[in-house]
Amino acid sequence: MATQPILDDASADPAALAVFDDIRAKRNTDYVNNFWRVLANDPDLLQTVWNRLQTVMAPGALDPLVKEMLYVAVSVANGCDYCIHSHTAAAKAKGMTPGQHAELLSVIAMASQTNALAKALGVPVDDRFTL
Amino acid sequence: MATQPILDDASADPAALAVFDDIRAKRNTDYVNNFWRVLANDPDLLQTVWNRLQTVMAPGALDPLVKEMLYVAVSVANGCDYCIHSHTAAAKAKGMTPGQHAELLSVIAMASQTNALAKALGVPVDDRFTL
Amino acid sequence: MATQPILDDASADPAALAVFDDIRAKRNTDYVNNFWRVLANDPDLLQTVWNRLQTVMAPGALDPLVKEMLYVAVSVANGCDYCIHSHTAAAKAKGMTPGQHAELLSVIAMASQTNALAKALGVPVDDRFTL
Amino acid sequence: MATQPILDDASADPAALAVFDDIRAKRNTDYVNNFWRVLANDPDLLQTVWNRLQTVMAPGALDPLVKEMLYVAVSVANGCDYCIHSHTAAAKAKGMTPGQHAELLSVIAMASQTNALAKALGVPVDDRFTL
Amino acid sequence: MATQPILDDASADPAALAVFDDIRAKRNTDYVNNFWRVLANDPDLLQTVWNRLQTVMAPGALDPLVKEMLYVAVSVANGCDYCIHSHTAAAKAKGMTPGQHAELLSVIAMASQTNALAKALGVPVDDRFTL
Amino acid sequence: MATQPILDDASADPAALAVFDDIRAKRNTDYVNNFWRVLANDPDLLQTVWNRLQTVMAPGALDPLVKEMLYVAVSVANGCDYCIHSHTAAAKAKGMTPGQHAELLSVIAMASQTNALAKALGVPVDDRFTL
Repeated sequence: MATQPILDDASADPAALAVFDDIRAKRNTDYVNNFWRVLANDPDLLQTVWNRLQTVMAPGALDPLVKEMLYVAVSVANGCDYCIHSHTAAAKAKGMTPGQHAELLSVIAMASQTNALAKALGVPVDDRFTL
Repeated sequence: MATQPILDDASADPAALAVFDDIRAKRNTDYVNNFWRVLANDPDLLQTVWNRLQTVMAPGALDPLVKEMLYVAVSVANGCDYCIHSHTAAAKAKGMTPGQHAELLSVIAMASQTNALAKALGVPVDDRFTL
Repeated sequence: MATQPILDDASADPAALAVFDDIRAKRNTDYVNNFWRVLANDPDLLQTVWNRLQTVMAPGALDPLVKEMLYVAVSVANGCDYCIHSHTAAAKAKGMTPGQHAELLSVIAMASQTNALAKALGVPVDDRFTL
Repeated sequence: MATQPILDDASADPAALAVFDDIRAKRNTDYVNNFWRVLANDPDLLQTVWNRLQTVMAPGALDPLVKEMLYVAVSVANGCDYCIHSHTAAAKAKGMTPGQHAELLSVIAMASQTNALAKALGVPVDDRFTL
Repeated sequence: MATQPILDDASADPAALAVFDDIRAKRNTDYVNNFWRVLANDPDLLQTVWNRLQTVMAPGALDPLVKEMLYVAVSVANGCDYCIHSHTAAAKAKGMTPGQHAELLSVIAMASQTNALAKALGVPVDDRFTL
Repeated sequence: MATQPILDDASADPAALAVFDDIRAKRNTDYVNNFWRVLANDPDLLQTVWNRLQTVMAPGALDPLVKEMLYVAVSVANGCDYCIHSHTAAAKAKGMTPGQHAELLSVIAMASQTNALAKALGVPVDDRFTL
């Protein structure tokens, strides 16, 4: 159902193939998932997104598992089915336990309902919450 | 700009006032923020949301700071200005450092752009990302 | 903060002024709210939206108060602060009681949280829910 | 495509099974739909959501059919395909006529377009729409 | 998976069939796509939407291809999978090149990430951006 | 109301100040708008976003005015008030006429309503709209 072809290695431009190879090397796997294979129709965009993703998701002040869970939370609210599935799988691969997954879901559900209530009620931001 | 009155203690129903008192006691503060004071127009809803929030945000498999950052992430994607401000403030109160805040923002920005790309491209979910 | 001028009667094009007059007559009021005064920068769009609104919100298989509450529900989920305020006011003007408002808010909150859960979990639609 | 298993009765935890039995009894059916069977991976969340749903959707100041239509309206705006299908089916089961469904759709469409226009134009909320 | 039947010509009401015929004539094709065939369950809504679509998408101050790309951009942000596919196909039919498609995607991705950042940071609108 | 300080030149880190200077030079203005002044709390993110923005919005297969209008369309659907104002202003600065603005608004409104209808109806994507 993609709006652009899902490119296999043989169909990909050399610049895109180089990114595929980098993904395989960095992730230590033979598998390149569909997101990259569709982005590959624009090798520049593929390269840009892949580069930025590595920087953003690297260990830093937040650990990679927390980052994956944040990614899932954003993807749920934005309604991206592909991203929910791929980043939930990534979070599991990085050690997310069933208990952590359950709490992640509970926070997402809680925030979603109070987001709706605060918007419906037009609650003004308290002065102390602004700088 | 609220669509229901922001109730001070004198205007609140006794059942709502009891929740205000519980909020003050549990948070060890004299301050009850606007969200609760508007929700107080429906004491049952106020009680339900306050009870659930305490359960969901308590320390568990995820620590409270991670939960606050997840709350911010969902609130940004859902466009709830009140919740963004109140939970960013809560995260800072729980120790979120500028470095952690910066990485939180970067993950939210990254996810938002790949959410859009995956949706625009109609990327089908890889079999390996489903159970 | 509008991105186009809020036109008073003196500044509006005759075609827009005719719509203002129709709004005043149909609503039995001297007041024309900001939404129409900004839309008036494009008299054709103003006329089209005003005509369609009257058709859609007229009494029919659903009563006008139910329609206003549906309008509020959609506006909350879409994050339109203007529409939340104007249609909550319209619902009150059409007789929405505090008890009805409270239940409206509770349904919106409930739906928002199960919407998030169903998306986060990728729940497949049951065959019996499709035709 | 669920991100957690769809639990049949044999796989569900006793606490989850008790909720399944309560759903069957309250709804007078043998069928437990997928939403509950996926939520069952966290029996506490399953119980909490099921309990709250019964309270919120019970007859009160608004009738149950109106509540189902509000649920559909929110689900459309939030883009939850599962919820759109399950609550449209529930509304039909509670007597929603084709004429009511048609008007529900027209209000959702109308609100969606004026939500977009009011946001695009940055229309300021009229003083009279605030308390 | 539609919530109302997809009506073929034999099942459609005469008023709906007349719109189908108009679609075929105006688009110079025998094919009527699913969106119209489901909308046909409410011939009035079908007629209203079809009429309005022709007016809005006609050549004017903006050319039809630009309008199709704008349609895709809105549909991505609103998460309408059907609309993303149908309007991407329409844009291609109107001459959208792979290079234009790539730039469309890049702008959507860019806007999505700065939308999230501006919301997360609560950036106040500069005076010079208001009238 | 920002969740991080709006940094003036004196408060900004040298790396951030260098970006401010580049913005002033490239845009031939003394003014640096609030978005950049808040992003400046994380000079790396500021640099990354500014660099990417220049690449994406440069003349290419699409002209810069079309790109600004696409940016507005996405920002409306995502509910980013800041971005709606700043990119509407940018579009006007790049020559968007009142007639083009009016058509932009009409397409956004049209797409928003058919997005809602296609989601509410669960319309399946026609085979011919997929590759």
